[in-house]
Amino acid sequence: MRLMTEKAQELYDVEEFWKFKMRVGLVKDAVRVPRTKKLIKLIVNFGDEERVVVAGIGDQYAPEDLKGKKMIFVTNLKPKQIAGIESQAMLVVAEDETTGKVYLITLDEKVPIGVKVW
Amino acid sequence: MRLMTEKAQELYDVEEFWKFKMRVGLVKDAVRVPRTKKLIKLIVNFGDEERVVVAGIGDQYAPEDLKGKKMIFVTNLKPKQIAGIESQAMLVVAEDETTGKVYLITLDEKVPIGVKVW
Repeated sequence: MRLMTEKAQELYDVEEFWKFKMRVGLVKDAVRVPRTKKLIKLIVNFGDEERVVVAGIGDQYAPEDLKGKKMIFVTNLKPKQIAGIESQAMLVVAEDETTGKVYLITLDEKVPIGVKVW
Repeated sequence: MRLMTEKAQELYDVEEFWKFKMRVGLVKDAVRVPRTKKLIKLIVNFGDEERVVVAGIGDQYAPEDLKGKKMIFVTNLKPKQIAGIESQAMLVVAEDETTGKVYLITLDEKVPIGVKVW
């Protein structure tokens, strides 16, 4: 039985979702951000450009786990200052909200760098 | 040199992106939609619910390629009638816009069904 207090979920037009650009990027380099507990600074190659991305998954992953991987990034968000570093895209991951466990979404080796995700 | 006509890319707040719910779903069943060229009807299990999803990748993938896979779906879009079937979520894939080639984004076996992608 559904709780009477459950809020109806708002539904959106797909066109609204599509205004966000997600792309496959290759993590060229990854280093821990000094004096932080879980920040990792990534250098991500999108083929036509390279960006700095700060990801907050350093409590569960080491920089070496990320380096060389092709993953998904949202690339048209406002840049964010995180621990004094400008993060120029957002890493997309899967997360179990019950346990807090983060799972990397890595794309196959054969997927070209920079391709669109939608 | 950048073309003078290039449009500045609009940037969005991450909070706006987060209103879209993406979840890992397990494709329990997949069948071609009769009398269509590229539609595949999926039955997707999200743990707490099951949904029908119509995906337009049947020109590049067979139903058997999808069945049993864990993939990413956007689950709070308005349902869409596609070839007379109500699609209740959208499959997220990678696509090379130059070649039109579609790449599946499959999650690791150990990723629990239904977890959030963000």
